[in-house]
Amino acid sequence: MSEVQATYLLEAEQANLNKKAEAIALGLTVGSWTNLPAVEQEQLAKHKGRVVEAKMIAEGKAIITVGYPSANFSNDLPAVLTTTFGKFSLDGKVKLLDLTFSDDIKHGYPGPKFGLEGIRQLTNTYDRPLLMSIFKGVIGRDLHSLKEQMKAQALGGIDIVKDDEILFENDLTPLEKRIPVCQEALRESYEITGKRTLHAVNLTGKTMELKENAYKAVELGADLLLFNTFAYGLDVMQALAEDPNIPLPIMAHPAFSGTMISSPDYGLAPGLLLGKLARMAGADLVLFPSPYGSVAMAKEETQAIAKHLTEDDQFKKAFPVPSAGIHPGLTPKLIADFGVDSIINAGGGIHGHPGGAAAGGRAFVQAIDAVLANQPLHDAAKDYEELAKALELWGGE
Amino acid sequence: MSEVQATYLLEAEQANLNKKAEAIALGLTVGSWTNLPAVEQEQLAKHKGRVVEAKMIAEGKAIITVGYPSANFSNDLPAVLTTTFGKFSLDGKVKLLDLTFSDDIKHGYPGPKFGLEGIRQLTNTYDRPLLMSIFKGVIGRDLHSLKEQMKAQALGGIDIVKDDEILFENDLTPLEKRIPVCQEALRESYEITGKRTLHAVNLTGKTMELKENAYKAVELGADLLLFNTFAYGLDVMQALAEDPNIPLPIMAHPAFSGTMISSPDYGLAPGLLLGKLARMAGADLVLFPSPYGSVAMAKEETQAIAKHLTEDDQFKKAFPVPSAGIHPGLTPKLIADFGVDSIINAGGGIHGHPGGAAAGGRAFVQAIDAVLANQPLHDAAKDYEELAKALELWGGE
Repeated sequence: MSEVQATYLLEAEQANLNKKAEAIALGLTVGSWTNLPAVEQEQLAKHKGRVVEAKMIAEGKAIITVGYPSANFSNDLPAVLTTTFGKFSLDGKVKLLDLTFSDDIKHGYPGPKFGLEGIRQLTNTYDRPLLMSIFKGVIGRDLHSLKEQMKAQALGGIDIVKDDEILFENDLTPLEKRIPVCQEALRESYEITGKRTLHAVNLTGKTMELKENAYKAVELGADLLLFNTFAYGLDVMQALAEDPNIPLPIMAHPAFSGTMISSPDYGLAPGLLLGKLARMAGADLVLFPSPYGSVAMAKEETQAIAKHLTEDDQFKKAFPVPSAGIHPGLTPKLIADFGVDSIINAGGGIHGHPGGAAAGGRAFVQAIDAVLANQPLHDAAKDYEELAKALELWGGE
Repeated sequence: MSEVQATYLLEAEQANLNKKAEAIALGLTVGSWTNLPAVEQEQLAKHKGRVVEAKMIAEGKAIITVGYPSANFSNDLPAVLTTTFGKFSLDGKVKLLDLTFSDDIKHGYPGPKFGLEGIRQLTNTYDRPLLMSIFKGVIGRDLHSLKEQMKAQALGGIDIVKDDEILFENDLTPLEKRIPVCQEALRESYEITGKRTLHAVNLTGKTMELKENAYKAVELGADLLLFNTFAYGLDVMQALAEDPNIPLPIMAHPAFSGTMISSPDYGLAPGLLLGKLARMAGADLVLFPSPYGSVAMAKEETQAIAKHLTEDDQFKKAFPVPSAGIHPGLTPKLIADFGVDSIINAGGGIHGHPGGAAAGGRAFVQAIDAVLANQPLHDAAKDYEELAKALELWGGE
């Protein structure tokens, strides 16, 4: 059947469960049913929502799955979200846990343009997690300071350096100057280390100017685009992903998504928004709060996001990037929890290293090598000063 | 000062309140401060966030207001939301209660193109609430059925008839046919009643196609645009409002906004999202759940939305449209709660009238007339059969 199935967590009682489920399926599609003449029922049959499942999961709490025929909506995410969770999102305690799209509907979405394998090719990194770092404290800083920070990170062996997501167009480090200066730093680092580092550039501006800004970033030599997907809308990211003139991977940042995923009773499940939908709409990499840091997300939620990004599907896989609170001592846990097909991403855990950002990067490289060689970090630390200092400062296994 | 002030409701203890507030102000702007050399502090001073207020409001609950210098962001809502509530939206229990923009920043936003006064001119209705109705059960129905429904509503004396927000491009009633057919119904009704009714057409499609679709709607004779603002993004609506080639009022529908406003602990305050920001970004009319119906919002929240839409500001006023569960008997309460400068909007309360939609519309017109003449509804009902039947069916004062 060509439909989108929506699964809701909501308040209900066993006594009215089926009635409630049926009311949703009708109310959000054809409106009324039982009183209609047979000829109208026939006419409307292909538009009628259907209850796929309705079950109590705890006292007063139920899960209801409703199928919405694709005949009811145009195949774009604003239409799908308005159909399945438009008015209904305002109807008391109700959370959208999942959306399941039939294959014909899925074909309307691009998925990642590069995907996990494409990013591996771009970074020439195989069989290990990628290492990413974040510019820190760049607001109010000039190009010289940015270049220094970029070079230090690259010298540490980082695969991808990302802009701070709160760095917007500004007089000191505008896109037009920031990209070439950072590329210069990356070339200088490459001449020293022989290792290429990529720069994810924050794509910002008004929605209708984003494509032009992206074209400019492409022309200036950006390697990837960082995008505050949820401050704009998933459909906006999809438009960027679908544009053949923007041949860059898109890194989706979770900024503002907390407004929609943090409550246990309302909004959307994190795995749905940051995992399934972000991947469908074209994210090649998705950042989300790691389960370890101060800005923490429950581990089962982070696992759900990662699963949605990497499980087999008609779309390319996307890279999970658990972020915040990451330091080298967490490397064994990160690889155990998210596997080799993930990205280890640190800010303070790189810049805060006593030896500076380059040493911070090296400590992570050493930690990753050790874990992949099945060597305990404290063993490896005997040979590597940077790792030893990191473990001393932040702890670790 | 040129800044956006963000007010948060969050968990805190008196003992760490000021430290927490300072950590937000620094963490979301320049990153660190006290350890910086004086020359750097000077350089960064105009970028540093500042704590405007921090106070405990209950055991474990605080309100903190932080000012973010406009030097830190480009003047668009995605940048403002990412700066003030980007990463921070994911940081535990925290709700964004308000954003206060200094005047120079406000000038970057259009506000309503028509506004309350403009809509009054278009509908030729003064000194009374407008009356609006909603197409019902139009999915799967053909043009003939749509036209009949439109005409019945118009004959009832409705000022504005709005599309169902879940009506997307479809084979039976595509935009291109729907608009002319509905306009034909409105002309036919006008010839009978001498009263002009307007049609708010649902603007749908992919984000990057919306402008083209809006131009088409303009050309075909649409009177207003209905828009699922929160399934797209406020900045998308702003782009439509700012386009001089789309000379139509925009009616913002709250579909999907429940994901962001329903939780008491997370997301945004309803008054901020559906009131202040919707108006700034160009909504001429804003629908929100009434405090009376089955899909109800707390009365103080609905009042906050209406206040943000209509209080004096540099922007034109926007029409509050409390919706859901509205029937003629609620008219005195609606006018008492939302004033004359609001819109009375009904679906079931018009279509479900025993005499049909035209009688349903007339019952509302009669109720509004009575309230404005300080006549109790039950008195007026002695002269008006339609109102009498409505009160009998749904009750009322």
